[in-house]
Amino acid sequence: MKEPPAKIVEKLQEFLDEDIRSGDITTNAMGVLSPEASATIFAKSRAVLAGMEEAAAIAKLTDLEYELLESEGDWVSPGDPVMKFKGKARTLLMVERICLNIIQRMSGIATKTNRMVTAARDENPDVIVAATRKTTPGFRYFEKRAVTLGGGDPHRYALDDMVLIKNNHITAIGGVTKAIEAAKQYVSFSKKISCEARNLDEALEAAHAGADIILLDNFSPEDVAKAHSTLKKEKLRSRVLLETSGGINESNVKEYAKTDIDIISSGSLTHSYDASDFNMILSLD
Amino acid sequence: MKEPPAKIVEKLQEFLDEDIRSGDITTNAMGVLSPEASATIFAKSRAVLAGMEEAAAIAKLTDLEYELLESEGDWVSPGDPVMKFKGKARTLLMVERICLNIIQRMSGIATKTNRMVTAARDENPDVIVAATRKTTPGFRYFEKRAVTLGGGDPHRYALDDMVLIKNNHITAIGGVTKAIEAAKQYVSFSKKISCEARNLDEALEAAHAGADIILLDNFSPEDVAKAHSTLKKEKLRSRVLLETSGGINESNVKEYAKTDIDIISSGSLTHSYDASDFNMILSLD
Amino acid sequence: MKEPPAKIVEKLQEFLDEDIRSGDITTNAMGVLSPEASATIFAKSRAVLAGMEEAAAIAKLTDLEYELLESEGDWVSPGDPVMKFKGKARTLLMVERICLNIIQRMSGIATKTNRMVTAARDENPDVIVAATRKTTPGFRYFEKRAVTLGGGDPHRYALDDMVLIKNNHITAIGGVTKAIEAAKQYVSFSKKISCEARNLDEALEAAHAGADIILLDNFSPEDVAKAHSTLKKEKLRSRVLLETSGGINESNVKEYAKTDIDIISSGSLTHSYDASDFNMILSLD
Amino acid sequence: MKEPPAKIVEKLQEFLDEDIRSGDITTNAMGVLSPEASATIFAKSRAVLAGMEEAAAIAKLTDLEYELLESEGDWVSPGDPVMKFKGKARTLLMVERICLNIIQRMSGIATKTNRMVTAARDENPDVIVAATRKTTPGFRYFEKRAVTLGGGDPHRYALDDMVLIKNNHITAIGGVTKAIEAAKQYVSFSKKISCEARNLDEALEAAHAGADIILLDNFSPEDVAKAHSTLKKEKLRSRVLLETSGGINESNVKEYAKTDIDIISSGSLTHSYDASDFNMILSLD
Amino acid sequence: MKEPPAKIVEKLQEFLDEDIRSGDITTNAMGVLSPEASATIFAKSRAVLAGMEEAAAIAKLTDLEYELLESEGDWVSPGDPVMKFKGKARTLLMVERICLNIIQRMSGIATKTNRMVTAARDENPDVIVAATRKTTPGFRYFEKRAVTLGGGDPHRYALDDMVLIKNNHITAIGGVTKAIEAAKQYVSFSKKISCEARNLDEALEAAHAGADIILLDNFSPEDVAKAHSTLKKEKLRSRVLLETSGGINESNVKEYAKTDIDIISSGSLTHSYDASDFNMILSLD
Amino acid sequence: MKEPPAKIVEKLQEFLDEDIRSGDITTNAMGVLSPEASATIFAKSRAVLAGMEEAAAIAKLTDLEYELLESEGDWVSPGDPVMKFKGKARTLLMVERICLNIIQRMSGIATKTNRMVTAARDENPDVIVAATRKTTPGFRYFEKRAVTLGGGDPHRYALDDMVLIKNNHITAIGGVTKAIEAAKQYVSFSKKISCEARNLDEALEAAHAGADIILLDNFSPEDVAKAHSTLKKEKLRSRVLLETSGGINESNVKEYAKTDIDIISSGSLTHSYDASDFNMILSLD
Repeated sequence: MKEPPAKIVEKLQEFLDEDIRSGDITTNAMGVLSPEASATIFAKSRAVLAGMEEAAAIAKLTDLEYELLESEGDWVSPGDPVMKFKGKARTLLMVERICLNIIQRMSGIATKTNRMVTAARDENPDVIVAATRKTTPGFRYFEKRAVTLGGGDPHRYALDDMVLIKNNHITAIGGVTKAIEAAKQYVSFSKKISCEARNLDEALEAAHAGADIILLDNFSPEDVAKAHSTLKKEKLRSRVLLETSGGINESNVKEYAKTDIDIISSGSLTHSYDASDFNMILSLD
Repeated sequence: MKEPPAKIVEKLQEFLDEDIRSGDITTNAMGVLSPEASATIFAKSRAVLAGMEEAAAIAKLTDLEYELLESEGDWVSPGDPVMKFKGKARTLLMVERICLNIIQRMSGIATKTNRMVTAARDENPDVIVAATRKTTPGFRYFEKRAVTLGGGDPHRYALDDMVLIKNNHITAIGGVTKAIEAAKQYVSFSKKISCEARNLDEALEAAHAGADIILLDNFSPEDVAKAHSTLKKEKLRSRVLLETSGGINESNVKEYAKTDIDIISSGSLTHSYDASDFNMILSLD
Repeated sequence: MKEPPAKIVEKLQEFLDEDIRSGDITTNAMGVLSPEASATIFAKSRAVLAGMEEAAAIAKLTDLEYELLESEGDWVSPGDPVMKFKGKARTLLMVERICLNIIQRMSGIATKTNRMVTAARDENPDVIVAATRKTTPGFRYFEKRAVTLGGGDPHRYALDDMVLIKNNHITAIGGVTKAIEAAKQYVSFSKKISCEARNLDEALEAAHAGADIILLDNFSPEDVAKAHSTLKKEKLRSRVLLETSGGINESNVKEYAKTDIDIISSGSLTHSYDASDFNMILSLD
Repeated sequence: MKEPPAKIVEKLQEFLDEDIRSGDITTNAMGVLSPEASATIFAKSRAVLAGMEEAAAIAKLTDLEYELLESEGDWVSPGDPVMKFKGKARTLLMVERICLNIIQRMSGIATKTNRMVTAARDENPDVIVAATRKTTPGFRYFEKRAVTLGGGDPHRYALDDMVLIKNNHITAIGGVTKAIEAAKQYVSFSKKISCEARNLDEALEAAHAGADIILLDNFSPEDVAKAHSTLKKEKLRSRVLLETSGGINESNVKEYAKTDIDIISSGSLTHSYDASDFNMILSLD
Repeated sequence: MKEPPAKIVEKLQEFLDEDIRSGDITTNAMGVLSPEASATIFAKSRAVLAGMEEAAAIAKLTDLEYELLESEGDWVSPGDPVMKFKGKARTLLMVERICLNIIQRMSGIATKTNRMVTAARDENPDVIVAATRKTTPGFRYFEKRAVTLGGGDPHRYALDDMVLIKNNHITAIGGVTKAIEAAKQYVSFSKKISCEARNLDEALEAAHAGADIILLDNFSPEDVAKAHSTLKKEKLRSRVLLETSGGINESNVKEYAKTDIDIISSGSLTHSYDASDFNMILSLD
Repeated sequence: MKEPPAKIVEKLQEFLDEDIRSGDITTNAMGVLSPEASATIFAKSRAVLAGMEEAAAIAKLTDLEYELLESEGDWVSPGDPVMKFKGKARTLLMVERICLNIIQRMSGIATKTNRMVTAARDENPDVIVAATRKTTPGFRYFEKRAVTLGGGDPHRYALDDMVLIKNNHITAIGGVTKAIEAAKQYVSFSKKISCEARNLDEALEAAHAGADIILLDNFSPEDVAKAHSTLKKEKLRSRVLLETSGGINESNVKEYAKTDIDIISSGSLTHSYDASDFNMILSLD
């Protein structure tokens, strides 16, 4: 299994510090907890498993051994053991909450993403379902990775990942073409340029101006389809990727997938999901 | 309005860094965005407002002026303006996503908490509804504060806030009484001691051993009521606070509140909630 | 031996950095110091040993092996070897000063605390002797732990450990009862509430208002005794812990211990003590 | 008044964080403490004042105004107001303990240093009294600055400030001359080279080898005097500074000062001193 | 003028700390340097000016006022004043070296870049001259920005900015097509994919496989031209950007620019340049 | 091989983070790169080798094994293998750029320094060639160490290493003698005092006032020689070191070395040098 980047390992240590602070006074008070023990994490709900890489990194940080029993990205069922730790009982008790907090949230997101991807690809096997920047501050890396594990696309991680010209930018600079030209002038050739369009005209203008991606903002499925066919007629379709977003969720994702859209993005993947249920059982030797 | 502790202000800066990283390349490319502008955050769903203190601290960090239009902890309705910023257009665009990400999550938690507190106090005006440590790693401070703004109790922030003897501790040390005695021996007089009980016997033993709080773990409402009456009969009830947790949510909280329980704690307040909907409208002068 | 929390290990690294900065230029200049050597720390004065956990963590940080020859909390005598390190001579010379600076200060505090605890418990075997927040900035963790090793109680580590209503708070809010009610309203049920009393009336008022602890501020032993008996007469004594502080030191601690006080706290444990004497002898192989 | 270097201001913020952690829950609970107030720090014992620069930096960090009423390095008497703050009552209460903890320790060291400098200079007006590296880990900057304010010399701040060849180095490399030559070869011309001598022969050897400073280790006053006269006879005295250390304190410093020694260094200035007494009086408007 | 991102301002503070460390002991010793003074930075060689944004941020960090006298990206001549500071003399002396160290290096890079861009565009007005990741560790942001100010393209800032498949990747995975397919499968749609080609066949294969950019590695100008014409013939040229690198410098850049290449990248822009000469003149009032 | 100080290891980690940021997306996409591989760094130009200690520390940070094939400070020739790594292919690819960026710059400086030292010592075998503070911000430690490896003297690392009174200081305080006296009064006896002289009179005044070092600023070789002979005649020469700087480079260093100067310092060692050429060849098993 790949290890997280060093900055992320540092963040996992901060997560531990947040919970432990000056010490686990309860466990410290129980003098008998130094001997070796083992602990197993079990799924308690059906879920797409995520967070194993992080739990493994936490084990490494705290001198615990671990064994993976299921793979990230796979579906697990209630009762399935997914990971086993070995080490000092005091350490196992100390990391329990953080491991579960990470696995439950990441699996919750992976599960929701996977349901949405499956629904969308039933209609259109090539469609991409993507997340947004509507993530929990400080936890974005984990939420984006959970989206990937669920089969989704993480989209921009930060504001320097891609140019994304929004309506406010267009209004301020005075039009779609001007905005795209300014971007081409300013940013490195190594970056893609995406541009929001509020209507078909703006979409066409963006395609003519050389956008790599056009983000159809709050379009109905019908309007998405029309944008596709118009661009095709104008021989612009093969030059651009079409993305749509705005109020898309599990209930209407199939409607959008049926159009020839390339990418469907939805903030709900990361801002409104239920944590999957997991627990950890300690076994003292 | 009170300012967050310095460490939390530092964390808010890290949240900005996570999103901005090496720079907002889109806004930077639009040369015209330096002039002064204003931006207003509006509620788009009914919610208990939270996150204003954080948004104000972000404004201070980025040299924006701000005005509060609604108070934290109050209900707001769709269309209500809740906060107004003034400053450089480029800065307003740069902080938009972070402010919304914080306000939406914190208001979502405050709103869910408030519904649960209201339901519980309909039955028992003195009951406390408390959160748990099932929080998003790195975001606990904000989630706990949102619980408080919704009328709930934040419970332990970290493992050194209170002794909480769990079943694993009891098993390891060999019984409730031994565990409580070890805790009394080890920790400062300034700390409370709470002890989980899996059944009535353990609850009685904990009370006799001098626990400050007894946490009735996965008790039915009937068993909670029985624990209360038994402790009362034994003249132990006034010495201890009774807390219950395990599978309690909006659908059954009233059943528990009807018993003479002191505290109901629920992980769902922070691990499974929907973000409230807010947006920000930029107005260029 | 337990390891310090991660944040404390980080602090120990900062202590090393403070001393070493860009490098130990003297040792670096002596090219022959790379071979393996051993070094032993000896007590040079009679002391309650403390700081072993920290010295062990420093050894781990710098790739030295170590062996504990005496236990923390035990009395050692001049000439007693207390800890032995093995590793590169250059590293041994580099960590010598820091290890001694920590052990000497912590042992100095543990020794002073132990003398005071012993004196107090001669009169009252259940009395608690506690430290205060009058600690060296940045070094509080180590000073509080030294107090614990000497048999004392560390008291509040930080301002969020317990509510402690001081005279300034009482004056500002308009009375003891109002202050305690505000605290009960504001803080989590998981926290204890302590309240300073300048006289017997305030002590009674605090007990009636539901304080968990009453801190008798600058009371004479006679007034402490009177507070105890009055509270007892009013059947309030069993509900509260009584603490006293203000000008208590080794010369008068027995007078206070003779009363039925629960806790005696003294800033002198951490702000005015002599470092115990230890040295380190290097032995080149 | 000069401001501390940025790294030291950062450290002062860490000192605040250590005490405040997640918040001053007591002061936060007392809603009425937001209005403006003032607070004055008073001396309660006779002391050489130190720590004003730090208290001023803390005021700046926490948005308090301040006024200095006495100067660092001057003697103050019980009852003298030394500094006044203005700002929010909550902030004044929050910084009180840290400011006092710093001022009391630094003034305690400055006072002890000044007594020792005065005693030594009664005998020899040019003698330098210097501190050592026996400081509290993490607090060295403040302790060294306090020594300076008391009229002493801070000596090495870190291991890269000067070469100081100790007995262990000499033994390892095989002699005084070899050690000094290695140092001359290795370190920058911008650094001084000091060398410990255990006896007169080593002192002579060090002078011949070109040491800038010779540290007479555990010499009696008579042996110091003899070292001085021998070096003078050999016409080496004007080339080197003579320093002595080992068991020197207020009781015997005059004996050493009477010799023609240049520098007397003593670890007791920083490892064994009593904090000076100061308090802070809050005045609500 | 735009302000640097918060992380970069933090880095500038670290640059100051590196130089100042525990304090500017020389300036501190000269007591008279507190009064207000001004200081002007002058060009001493012909250069494209860069580093003003950084110098301004340093001024802000240290409470100095500043005035820009020339614009970044413009040519300046020996004797031209480029920036003026006002503030305490001690602060001006303290920041002098850092400001000059930054301005001299950034201007040196901007100047070299501009010469190379000018030479290349004499032949081909649309050609892009780009930097590489061959930058000074820790100083990349500044070197890349200097390239931009000189008219160049910064290329990838970090390994997550774009996929760039190198020869080692191709060898390891077993071919160009496999590598590009793996990248398309793995990375977000928001990222461009660039692929190195060692010869014309690999270039064609990369174009067919859907690379966004083909990096012609160590191609002669003739081979670059041939790659262009072959891709054009196969109607693949409009789909891809062509970049070339390897041993390109001021002496041969025109040869490459004459071909129909889109991007010429050169490590020498950042790893081998002479610092431009600037100085700072202090004027005491 | 000695390990770098902890702070420097931390900086090396930051260098890795700067390049890798959220991950090496290209290498991550190539699933086959986990197996063990080896990689060798080869010299591609004649150079004095430097940066091995840093490359070794990076290997340790990233769990790679390494073997040194050449020693730092030695000359290497094109084609010489200098260091070999073993470990995961993905890790080898990830650290390649950083290792080369460090080795190329440090070797470039060591090579330039060595050429200048050799030239100077042809004329005067005892002369010291020293660097200045004209270093790349954040990279000073590495540049100074490279100077040392090339046979030069690192000079001051930071402003607290030595007193260096510059012309601005002299002007501000009102003369050379006043400046030196202020320094003697203010700084610790453990620090040397250097003073700039703009002419022979100032040099004499500085020697009389007791400077340890006189820095002859922008003197011609003839004036340096005259300063030497005048000081000798006045019997002051043996008390001071003479340093000269200002416009000294490889072309005129011999002229200065011929005089009886002690130290020649030159900013060009660190601000204007060409990186030496090295590459890394990966070999998959």
